[in-house]
Amino acid sequence: MKAAIITIGTEILIGSILNSNSKFLSERLSELGVHVSYHISVRDDHDELLDQIKMINDRVDIIFLCGGLGPTADDITKQVLAEFLNRKLVLDDYQYNKLKKRFEERNRTMTENNLRQVYVIESSNVLDNNWGIAPGEYIEQEDKKYFLFPGPPKEFEPMVDTYLKNILKNDNEIIIKSLNVAGLGESRVEDAIRKLNLEEPNISINTFAKFYDTEVKIIAEGQDAKYLNKKVQSIIDALYATFKNNLYAEDNINLSKTLMNKLLEKNLNISFAESITGGLLSSMLTGEAGASNVMKNSIVTYSDIAKIKMLGVNKDTIERYGAVSQQTAYEMAKGLKDINLSDICVSVTGEAGPIKSETDIGTVYVCYYYDDDNYEVKKYFFRGSRKEIQQRTADSIMLHLIFNL
Amino acid sequence: MKAAIITIGTEILIGSILNSNSKFLSERLSELGVHVSYHISVRDDHDELLDQIKMINDRVDIIFLCGGLGPTADDITKQVLAEFLNRKLVLDDYQYNKLKKRFEERNRTMTENNLRQVYVIESSNVLDNNWGIAPGEYIEQEDKKYFLFPGPPKEFEPMVDTYLKNILKNDNEIIIKSLNVAGLGESRVEDAIRKLNLEEPNISINTFAKFYDTEVKIIAEGQDAKYLNKKVQSIIDALYATFKNNLYAEDNINLSKTLMNKLLEKNLNISFAESITGGLLSSMLTGEAGASNVMKNSIVTYSDIAKIKMLGVNKDTIERYGAVSQQTAYEMAKGLKDINLSDICVSVTGEAGPIKSETDIGTVYVCYYYDDDNYEVKKYFFRGSRKEIQQRTADSIMLHLIFNL
Repeated sequence: MKAAIITIGTEILIGSILNSNSKFLSERLSELGVHVSYHISVRDDHDELLDQIKMINDRVDIIFLCGGLGPTADDITKQVLAEFLNRKLVLDDYQYNKLKKRFEERNRTMTENNLRQVYVIESSNVLDNNWGIAPGEYIEQEDKKYFLFPGPPKEFEPMVDTYLKNILKNDNEIIIKSLNVAGLGESRVEDAIRKLNLEEPNISINTFAKFYDTEVKIIAEGQDAKYLNKKVQSIIDALYATFKNNLYAEDNINLSKTLMNKLLEKNLNISFAESITGGLLSSMLTGEAGASNVMKNSIVTYSDIAKIKMLGVNKDTIERYGAVSQQTAYEMAKGLKDINLSDICVSVTGEAGPIKSETDIGTVYVCYYYDDDNYEVKKYFFRGSRKEIQQRTADSIMLHLIFNL
Repeated sequence: MKAAIITIGTEILIGSILNSNSKFLSERLSELGVHVSYHISVRDDHDELLDQIKMINDRVDIIFLCGGLGPTADDITKQVLAEFLNRKLVLDDYQYNKLKKRFEERNRTMTENNLRQVYVIESSNVLDNNWGIAPGEYIEQEDKKYFLFPGPPKEFEPMVDTYLKNILKNDNEIIIKSLNVAGLGESRVEDAIRKLNLEEPNISINTFAKFYDTEVKIIAEGQDAKYLNKKVQSIIDALYATFKNNLYAEDNINLSKTLMNKLLEKNLNISFAESITGGLLSSMLTGEAGASNVMKNSIVTYSDIAKIKMLGVNKDTIERYGAVSQQTAYEMAKGLKDINLSDICVSVTGEAGPIKSETDIGTVYVCYYYDDDNYEVKKYFFRGSRKEIQQRTADSIMLHLIFNL
């Protein structure tokens, strides 16, 4: 099956936002064995959208229309598709009552504009939106499939994940497995995998470079579920054996969640004394549900005086060795440990730039402090912009902890 | 002038990479007054690309073809455009010698494949690539303009910046201005603007919903610079008057940078005592270059014991009123102020979920503490996922500070 993804929104055409929906949907469609032939983006313009639907309709089996389902006058996607399919727009009672209730609960008045969002194309399958207001729709007409999805990614992504698989299911068994490898470049990972000679006609293994890691994605498709499962498992085993020191997670579970799970499993808790990362480590970890079980406190010491006053770092240490030094990192971690609220204390000090201080931009010292007889100070060096250096610092610390706890 | 951007590359269609080139080029074209009507992405497929060029050629004045200029067999962009324009590919002597020298310098042997990259479309204007190998090209034929650019962003972006402005220079004056409005939904902002009746034939005003705010973008184009400037300024004045309590920044300067600038301007520094936000406020602020001038320290107290031990919150207060209460928020902020490292202390405690505690998910208390006689505790309520509640909490605190410092 061939598909076209049409995104509607002037903000994409004037370069205000990245078209992340097309990427997201393409990834999901590839996993379902659908061949995406075209991405097309048009403005909120009736004639141009209609023209593009007419042009692409003969070339594909499925058309996705994403965006332009909002309440304002320039949201025209639904109207244009209805016109193309020669169907009417009708008020959907369920959606109307749901919206009415929503406004009542929030003590707000429903406007004429809001009502536009509860009209749907007649005889369509309405896809309920639990993450926002505008419902999605799915229509079959003359052997073709048409989908309407709202544009905001926080509505679009869960709706795609909720509805697509069931509607586009195919008779084949499809197994998808991702393994996350960190600390090696994508080309080294790809090289190592190629040498293993693991591919088969109906099993593909692809690598995708992410910010701090490489995703290895295995997709197997076929009739014999038992055979496929066995094959995929043997590939996973081979990859674990090859990347034993770098394969840190499966199925794109992120670093902070992986770290949290590891801490929970070992029944340990952690605190951070953050200078260069300024709260990023704590924020990443507390972004995960359940983080209160593994972190009670952290301290952001973004100045010499804070390091001295809040962590008991020696003023002489900073004067003699500098705020960015292994000595300062050690004293920060020890001071945090002395507060006595956690098993593992991690301190980090470094220079993120953009203005060079006495230390080179990108230099980072981290002290991993378990107890007075068990700690290590590591020096790192990262390239990139200020925010990239901060993010790479936090990622590397989490990775180190995941592999060493 | 109307333009279409066609990006060529299977990796985009399978969702492996984001189409950042189309965003980058669209931004630049908007600034040059070129109306981008279409983004199209196709695979490395001769027939599909040729088909798309044929379809779009009548609809625009300029076609940009990005990517597919590499040395391998699946790089077909140049060949397809030559075929469409009915021109030959010819060896470019200058590019040939440049490539030959490059290989000699690196002691590498040039292959047949590499030679493909120094063939250009006959009579085209070759755009030298100083950031990689494949040259770009610019062709005029029958009142239409065609551009070829290599796909890798680190070659694509500097080439666009080097060549585009000179080729597409326009006699008109173009003024672009963005205003950022927070705390109102996009539809309310759009509504209010429509009622002001500010649009003119050559001045457009568009609104774009962002995560926590609405961008109002004014684009004016015409011959009379003085008149346009005056008109745009009067629109800006009208918008400031209308959104006086919500217009917090111009030209998409983000919340944390706006807050930092405000603190610098007033010569104040700030500390956060973070419970529900877990380090997010500190992390947002320290992500900005120069943050060390406005923040010396912060504390993440992600447990009752940390609030008691590190901020001196009374155990009785937590037992009697709860950790999520105005009393606890007040004592957290006062405890932070007592550490005596900053002018403004902001504490925040709340329930982010996903599991309901004694407090409803989304309930947040914030204490803004300036000194013992000058503080306020505010209660907020936010909807959304855990991370959304954390982000909205942080955004709302920054907004409150920006408007009240």
